[in-house]
Amino acid sequence: MTWIEVKKSKLEVQKQLIKEYLAPHNQLPSVDDLNDVTGYLDRCALMTSREKQITNYSISELQYRYLAKELTAEEVVRAFCHRSTLAHQLVNCITEVRFKESLEEARKQDAFVEEQQRLVGPLHGVIISVKDNINVSGLATSLGLVGLAEKEAVQDSAVVTLLKKLGGIIICKTNVPSGLMFAETSNMLWGRTLNPFNRKYLNVGGSSGGEGAMASLKGSCFGIGSDIGGSVRHPAALNNVYCIKPSFGRFPCYGTESGQPGQESIRTVYGIISSKIENVEYSLRVCIDAKPYLDIDASCLPLPYSSYDINYKVPLNIAFMESDGLTTVTPPVQRGLYIVKEALKAEGHNVIDWPCEYFDDIRKTIYPFYDANGLKTIKDILEKSEEPVDPHIHLDNCRDMPVSELWALQHTRTALVQKYLHYWNTGYEGGRLDAIIIPTSAFPACLMDKVPPQPYTSVWNVVDYSASTFPVTRCDTDIDKPMKKNHFISDTDRQVHEIYSKELQKFEGGPVGLQLVCNRLEEEKCLALTRYVSSLLEN
Amino acid sequence: MTWIEVKKSKLEVQKQLIKEYLAPHNQLPSVDDLNDVTGYLDRCALMTSREKQITNYSISELQYRYLAKELTAEEVVRAFCHRSTLAHQLVNCITEVRFKESLEEARKQDAFVEEQQRLVGPLHGVIISVKDNINVSGLATSLGLVGLAEKEAVQDSAVVTLLKKLGGIIICKTNVPSGLMFAETSNMLWGRTLNPFNRKYLNVGGSSGGEGAMASLKGSCFGIGSDIGGSVRHPAALNNVYCIKPSFGRFPCYGTESGQPGQESIRTVYGIISSKIENVEYSLRVCIDAKPYLDIDASCLPLPYSSYDINYKVPLNIAFMESDGLTTVTPPVQRGLYIVKEALKAEGHNVIDWPCEYFDDIRKTIYPFYDANGLKTIKDILEKSEEPVDPHIHLDNCRDMPVSELWALQHTRTALVQKYLHYWNTGYEGGRLDAIIIPTSAFPACLMDKVPPQPYTSVWNVVDYSASTFPVTRCDTDIDKPMKKNHFISDTDRQVHEIYSKELQKFEGGPVGLQLVCNRLEEEKCLALTRYVSSLLEN
Repeated sequence: MTWIEVKKSKLEVQKQLIKEYLAPHNQLPSVDDLNDVTGYLDRCALMTSREKQITNYSISELQYRYLAKELTAEEVVRAFCHRSTLAHQLVNCITEVRFKESLEEARKQDAFVEEQQRLVGPLHGVIISVKDNINVSGLATSLGLVGLAEKEAVQDSAVVTLLKKLGGIIICKTNVPSGLMFAETSNMLWGRTLNPFNRKYLNVGGSSGGEGAMASLKGSCFGIGSDIGGSVRHPAALNNVYCIKPSFGRFPCYGTESGQPGQESIRTVYGIISSKIENVEYSLRVCIDAKPYLDIDASCLPLPYSSYDINYKVPLNIAFMESDGLTTVTPPVQRGLYIVKEALKAEGHNVIDWPCEYFDDIRKTIYPFYDANGLKTIKDILEKSEEPVDPHIHLDNCRDMPVSELWALQHTRTALVQKYLHYWNTGYEGGRLDAIIIPTSAFPACLMDKVPPQPYTSVWNVVDYSASTFPVTRCDTDIDKPMKKNHFISDTDRQVHEIYSKELQKFEGGPVGLQLVCNRLEEEKCLALTRYVSSLLEN
Repeated sequence: MTWIEVKKSKLEVQKQLIKEYLAPHNQLPSVDDLNDVTGYLDRCALMTSREKQITNYSISELQYRYLAKELTAEEVVRAFCHRSTLAHQLVNCITEVRFKESLEEARKQDAFVEEQQRLVGPLHGVIISVKDNINVSGLATSLGLVGLAEKEAVQDSAVVTLLKKLGGIIICKTNVPSGLMFAETSNMLWGRTLNPFNRKYLNVGGSSGGEGAMASLKGSCFGIGSDIGGSVRHPAALNNVYCIKPSFGRFPCYGTESGQPGQESIRTVYGIISSKIENVEYSLRVCIDAKPYLDIDASCLPLPYSSYDINYKVPLNIAFMESDGLTTVTPPVQRGLYIVKEALKAEGHNVIDWPCEYFDDIRKTIYPFYDANGLKTIKDILEKSEEPVDPHIHLDNCRDMPVSELWALQHTRTALVQKYLHYWNTGYEGGRLDAIIIPTSAFPACLMDKVPPQPYTSVWNVVDYSASTFPVTRCDTDIDKPMKKNHFISDTDRQVHEIYSKELQKFEGGPVGLQLVCNRLEEEKCLALTRYVSSLLEN
């Protein structure tokens, strides 16, 4: 088969698997009719009100009803299959489909509840989607590459083993950029995933863009993505949802796929994305409580989940950053930072303006790591399938580096990580930082094909700190007028502000999500503070 | 200066710094007069009986007497300076000297006790030696290379920062092989360190050989070594002392030197060596209790020390290995294993014969990592100093590998680590293993210049498990007759048994130390079980 034939065949199979839940195309709004579809599914007539209710429940609300026999897992699976299919029709977020298997799993769980009057595990009847690079046995792990589209995984990734063991029901996999090679979500096999807030112009983010859109449209209770430079946080922020990017070792990562297998200079970590922070917190906790280090993933740490009490230390030392040294933020992001800063000030916390010390040095060490093998793996796959190379991928600008150079870079990076820890402890005279609040990008959701480099997120992969995102506001072009700037800190900075000025209207409604960064392996604290900050914004 | 002049000058400076404690050469036994000097220092007339008593105290016995004003740190430092100098005269184990600084630190601690009636910290007045590759500001970190001999470190390694902060007094650094490049201890700068059990023939082990000999002769309360393939465990076993090689992240490692800076495929870890297991346990505990992850070393984990109760789970599942797949053990080591096995059986534990599953595969992934940069760093240093290349180092057999190959090897290694965890859990039908007891080498202490490759130790670096050594017996050539073997599992195996047969008499008295291996980050359990097993052997 030619690559075109493989692609057609994959899309046809997908269509068959979701057929039962598809709405007729003429019943769905076109992009021109309805650009922002975030509220659409809860308003439309395509879903029943009971389906809408079910797909809006938190995990605890679902599980309460399972035990009270008010809901069955089967009904819940059906509701989410329906909603995720409609989401897919709106923004093209699904790759592989597991609806049939999910229904079978749900029926078994329902029988178990009937018989035992208890749940099979802490993720009983919890509907999950996973990023395409995560192996689920029986499904392909294509990474958006035609050359991998026909090979079924024979073994689950460690995270899937864990989720299934706890009772989680994985209904589908979600879209990624070709080979996970850039920070948006489009590829030759599945096409582009759109941003539900602004389907026409705005980028859905990447590389976990399918998960970002799915979370925003509530097609699953939570999703799993991977993050090596921001790939969980960027799409989460661009879709105004919550996420956690844990430090390496806190959450299973074994047995997944990437374009750079064996790359360890910056660790890929897996994280959780959801429209509800309580779902992120709950699912992270039960995964850690299951002690995956014992038998699921040898890279996991025997570090128990220990709930963080926000009242333990008041006032908090919260640092704010308005730049990552490469770009300065656009007006909607600046406004987002201001909103959060004022909310924290009002509660009496120490709010600190934090410079981007070491960011330049760290940024310079990052990029050579990503393609240090000359992108050999990706090149080999593309060569075999003969599919065209996605224009976002630049195969010629890299080389298979000698190990002596890699080691020198790793040595430099380790020294920077050590320096940053010192800076975290001593940079503020009032004591050790509790958290840094920093944008995910200079833009709100950026334009398609116009993602600037993102030290804002990638620096935290290098130092391996825990980081969340949380929604703050949306771009309002009436308020967020372009800045009159004469001085730019870099060419990229100039481009960012020029794009924002020139294309202002296209940014309308673009989500502004910020990161909350805690130190290494402080996931509990990171999520507790994120919940706290978010609660202040609701008031 | 030529390299010979640098060497002479270094040795002369060293002599001046230890002058006060040196015994006249004619008062010390020659190798021909007394080959085994392990009991010598406690018998000889060169030390006072009080000095002998002091240098035999455990840490808790010392600290009790500090508080009771029966001892001052100054007197203790003097006693250890004396004993370590005599040890040095017997086996050549010291490199850099810090006697004067140690006395000053001791006097300050004594004044503190006088004034405050308490100790400065949990390592108050504890006398420590460290391997030469650990930076102590003001001292050179030569790694046995003339090219590095004149450069003073300007910053302490993280482990030194921590030890000093807790009150530890570092009196000297100890010898290593050239560039830490092989598993024995000799170099062009400081010469060879001898094995105190058999100075004429037996190898002291390496690369922390100076620490092994120092621990055996009780020249410090404990020593710090580094281990990337067995470099703490090998010399500890060859000197019949205790050690712990922790998993990466449990003990500080930042800011030390090696011939392969930036190498991370197999993590170098730092461990503790002492003639007393209680000193190993105590010092590891207080170092972990100090939370070095907060401010001392960004690679340390926030994993508290949690004492392991041996009675928690009886019977234990203890696996025994008599081979690493490359060699089979010589008779004294076989006898050592038998002694331990019978002791555990008698207590009712499950004693399991454990095959060396995966060892071959793991072994094959290890070696390419060590010199994957083509030994570029070492070559550069040697070139500048013009010192002759140590014959143990083979500079021509390696190349600066492309990163694509390194990543492929890392990918394979990660899969093997995962498989081994599964095997640890399921290889014994009676349940998860508690520990593996395995030799450190096919030999008891081996002969000089004849160290075989050691998967026995290096496999545990790859899977990053916690491992100790403990003394079991010594080679008795009347009992440990060479085996009549016709079948050998490899050429190396044949060579091992041929050497043992041909050179039998030279092995007389050679220590047999075994490893006790627990899973990753199970240091508390590893040491508790080591203490337990050792206590059975004493009965």
